[in-house]
Amino acid sequence: MKAIDLNSDMGESFGAYKLGMDEEVIKHITSANIACGWHAGDPAVMDKTVKMAVDHGVGIGAHPGYPDLLGFGRRNMNCTLKDVRDYLVYQIGALEAFCKVHGTRLCHVKPHGALYLTAVENQEVARAVAGAIVGVNPDLFYVALAGKKGERMRKIGQEVGLKVVYEAFPDRAYTPEGNLLSRKLPGAVIKDPETVSKRALKMAKEGRVIAVDGTTIPLEAQTLCVHGDTPTAVDLVKSIRRILKENSVEVKPMAKFV
Amino acid sequence: MKAIDLNSDMGESFGAYKLGMDEEVIKHITSANIACGWHAGDPAVMDKTVKMAVDHGVGIGAHPGYPDLLGFGRRNMNCTLKDVRDYLVYQIGALEAFCKVHGTRLCHVKPHGALYLTAVENQEVARAVAGAIVGVNPDLFYVALAGKKGERMRKIGQEVGLKVVYEAFPDRAYTPEGNLLSRKLPGAVIKDPETVSKRALKMAKEGRVIAVDGTTIPLEAQTLCVHGDTPTAVDLVKSIRRILKENSVEVKPMAKFV
Amino acid sequence: MKAIDLNSDMGESFGAYKLGMDEEVIKHITSANIACGWHAGDPAVMDKTVKMAVDHGVGIGAHPGYPDLLGFGRRNMNCTLKDVRDYLVYQIGALEAFCKVHGTRLCHVKPHGALYLTAVENQEVARAVAGAIVGVNPDLFYVALAGKKGERMRKIGQEVGLKVVYEAFPDRAYTPEGNLLSRKLPGAVIKDPETVSKRALKMAKEGRVIAVDGTTIPLEAQTLCVHGDTPTAVDLVKSIRRILKENSVEVKPMAKFV
Amino acid sequence: MKAIDLNSDMGESFGAYKLGMDEEVIKHITSANIACGWHAGDPAVMDKTVKMAVDHGVGIGAHPGYPDLLGFGRRNMNCTLKDVRDYLVYQIGALEAFCKVHGTRLCHVKPHGALYLTAVENQEVARAVAGAIVGVNPDLFYVALAGKKGERMRKIGQEVGLKVVYEAFPDRAYTPEGNLLSRKLPGAVIKDPETVSKRALKMAKEGRVIAVDGTTIPLEAQTLCVHGDTPTAVDLVKSIRRILKENSVEVKPMAKFV
Repeated sequence: MKAIDLNSDMGESFGAYKLGMDEEVIKHITSANIACGWHAGDPAVMDKTVKMAVDHGVGIGAHPGYPDLLGFGRRNMNCTLKDVRDYLVYQIGALEAFCKVHGTRLCHVKPHGALYLTAVENQEVARAVAGAIVGVNPDLFYVALAGKKGERMRKIGQEVGLKVVYEAFPDRAYTPEGNLLSRKLPGAVIKDPETVSKRALKMAKEGRVIAVDGTTIPLEAQTLCVHGDTPTAVDLVKSIRRILKENSVEVKPMAKFV
Repeated sequence: MKAIDLNSDMGESFGAYKLGMDEEVIKHITSANIACGWHAGDPAVMDKTVKMAVDHGVGIGAHPGYPDLLGFGRRNMNCTLKDVRDYLVYQIGALEAFCKVHGTRLCHVKPHGALYLTAVENQEVARAVAGAIVGVNPDLFYVALAGKKGERMRKIGQEVGLKVVYEAFPDRAYTPEGNLLSRKLPGAVIKDPETVSKRALKMAKEGRVIAVDGTTIPLEAQTLCVHGDTPTAVDLVKSIRRILKENSVEVKPMAKFV
Repeated sequence: MKAIDLNSDMGESFGAYKLGMDEEVIKHITSANIACGWHAGDPAVMDKTVKMAVDHGVGIGAHPGYPDLLGFGRRNMNCTLKDVRDYLVYQIGALEAFCKVHGTRLCHVKPHGALYLTAVENQEVARAVAGAIVGVNPDLFYVALAGKKGERMRKIGQEVGLKVVYEAFPDRAYTPEGNLLSRKLPGAVIKDPETVSKRALKMAKEGRVIAVDGTTIPLEAQTLCVHGDTPTAVDLVKSIRRILKENSVEVKPMAKFV
Repeated sequence: MKAIDLNSDMGESFGAYKLGMDEEVIKHITSANIACGWHAGDPAVMDKTVKMAVDHGVGIGAHPGYPDLLGFGRRNMNCTLKDVRDYLVYQIGALEAFCKVHGTRLCHVKPHGALYLTAVENQEVARAVAGAIVGVNPDLFYVALAGKKGERMRKIGQEVGLKVVYEAFPDRAYTPEGNLLSRKLPGAVIKDPETVSKRALKMAKEGRVIAVDGTTIPLEAQTLCVHGDTPTAVDLVKSIRRILKENSVEVKPMAKFV
């Protein structure tokens, strides 16, 4: 029986500011990428989100980002590799402490936003990220981009001895080469819920995706990224989960099958 | 043979800003209280300071503070008890991650500045601090104020199961009741190096201190707080260390004898 | 004909975080207290909010707070008086610059949250606030608490030569002495929209309010504070505005009649 | 008689952190570029530095930077043009308020660090900077890079109607084309005080500089950038000032002759 993990970014609220529908989406996912207070999140939010993940049997991951709350970690910063490593060690450790408080373990690390994209493009940054993870805890999973473009990022994770988890995006268009279509191009983000659900199923069950040119290409993935920002987004996650179940794909935390 | 620990606040630089003479003072102390990026310090500084402590066989402690870099954690903030706990979990975890990177263990926690003073005055805050420590790692030592006023803070640490380390200040005047003389009063801070060194010796060897009224009072302490802000301060640490050695007091990390 | 100003806190969003229904509430108020980036708000939000105020003929005020985004400026910080003054000069100036960009003038200053409450309680803080305002621009209005408790705060503003605008809260209960009932007590916040509207009318038209003991007491106010956090809150503002109009109270920016 | 302005970055301390020898260097310069609290500086430092500038008859400029205290504004951030404009409006306004408090006027704006370099390279960023300045106050001077590479930046400032002040660097090597030699190349920074002083004189008196290939090239500049980070740096400023005086170049604030 095929298995897949559903991950979602969570714990992005900050102080008086609420973002995302964590309480809803947590019911339908199997892994939570929790913001660590730099681009989003704060200690109270981290505490609450870790607890919520424990209560729902959801795997916990750190979602570290650039030191840029104002930009939500979405804009690139010209940090040194040493900075990247240190920033990640810091954030991973902070989240790990909340895991201890709640008697659980940190499971994975997925870099956030601009840092993720930079790690995909720049192998030295990917190495800095991997170095931080392995330095704090070599048992942590490194969530990295599935498809052609993610190859180097994933290889670097494996080289340092990390278990690498391939991540695909059901709501993003892929090129025939197996890369994400640039967000600048039309059709990059797929909005029709039924289409997205079917894509998720194809990814999970067959390890394949239909590219923008209509061809079906291979796309190995152990985790699919889903969103919980809006009620519509949460409905979509529910629908993805249902279609997977109906088609005998087991949805469970990555640690249970990777 | 009597033993004592010498602790100093370290890792208080931030970005382009340098504070303290860490490279010098580290040679003469046995425990470093390392800032965790909230009132001072940053990930690069934490990384460097932890490494330095490892290289010198110095015990590593977290020195968490209020979220107030602008005020250096020295002004009180009306945080909830839950906030205090969460802020400390976060900061302790962040520092612990750097310990892992450097193959060592975090040893103690000493709250910084206004948070320390509030924990002395307010037992609920002391309990929040203790709760954070025990939640992250019950083997960590809780550094708390020696003397009369520190009694509740220490008792609370012991109640939650922590090993509590009593801290005294050789360069601060004590009242006959065994409390620190308020900094607002003249003579609160003792500047003469010879006097301070002798006080340190009396504290370490006899567990006593001469109070402002000339009486000698008991003051149990396992660690003495020293400073490394200026060349003069570093000289004083050297002198304290020498006088202790000359008088057969062993100076070593708290973990070796507490 | 009686006149009254309706003020509301605005521009409290930050980066990716949205707070408040500014686009809606702006249509119904006459003065906007705009956050200045310390406890809330950011330059893009300030720019947008100032523009919106200009477009709607709404008076613009600075709403400076403590340097505490995490706590939304709602918790007290033990700042020096000099700090308070400097923090306000900074924030007022920042907002004034956006007024210049949009070809308008800053009209008033109302301290935010814990800073406002502290200025009410502590006359030295009230003086520091007034000093900042008069230092930047002596033509600015100082919005201060109406009622007994606000007396000193208002007097200090007048002493330094500022025009002081008295602010009342239609949705807050008042004691027979003319003070706000503590939020810790039941009934401190009045939720029934009709009651609140009627209170607003009584405040505006008669300069009086019904206290918690049922007695009617005088309460001079030129501006009433209303909220725009939720659709319900916005409906309430609409209803207040309507009842004022129906009863021949002119609702207009403070600068038009104070 | 020839005239030149000597500018230096000042007010870069932050909270407990001290940077630079402002009290010394202020005696020898004629324009101060004052940090505005984003990459460095804080309200108390701004207040103090503005006062110091007034006391010494030194022209006051805003030195706005990226929102990156941790990186001291020295690393590029991928901000939108709108962000750049808003960030500058904010910072310029904040400093202008301190000028008002001290009864003086803001004179110029010089972007800091990575933002300055980006404005030189990217004309859209240069335009965003110029737009912020002209929006807040069209009488402010725009300090922009002298030499070939600065042409576009300066032209953009002039196009929006700003007075542009050309800035040269006596301690930096120039290519025969009139560009700064990259800091990555050897010899980019000139350390010999006598050489630097002579270069300053040649720049001020002749509007020329000796390039790295030994040729003398034209380099129009109204202001020379000098440093005050170390006692040696301050000595150099003194020496530059002396040599200028000895050679009948008048050193005075840009506003007096531009």
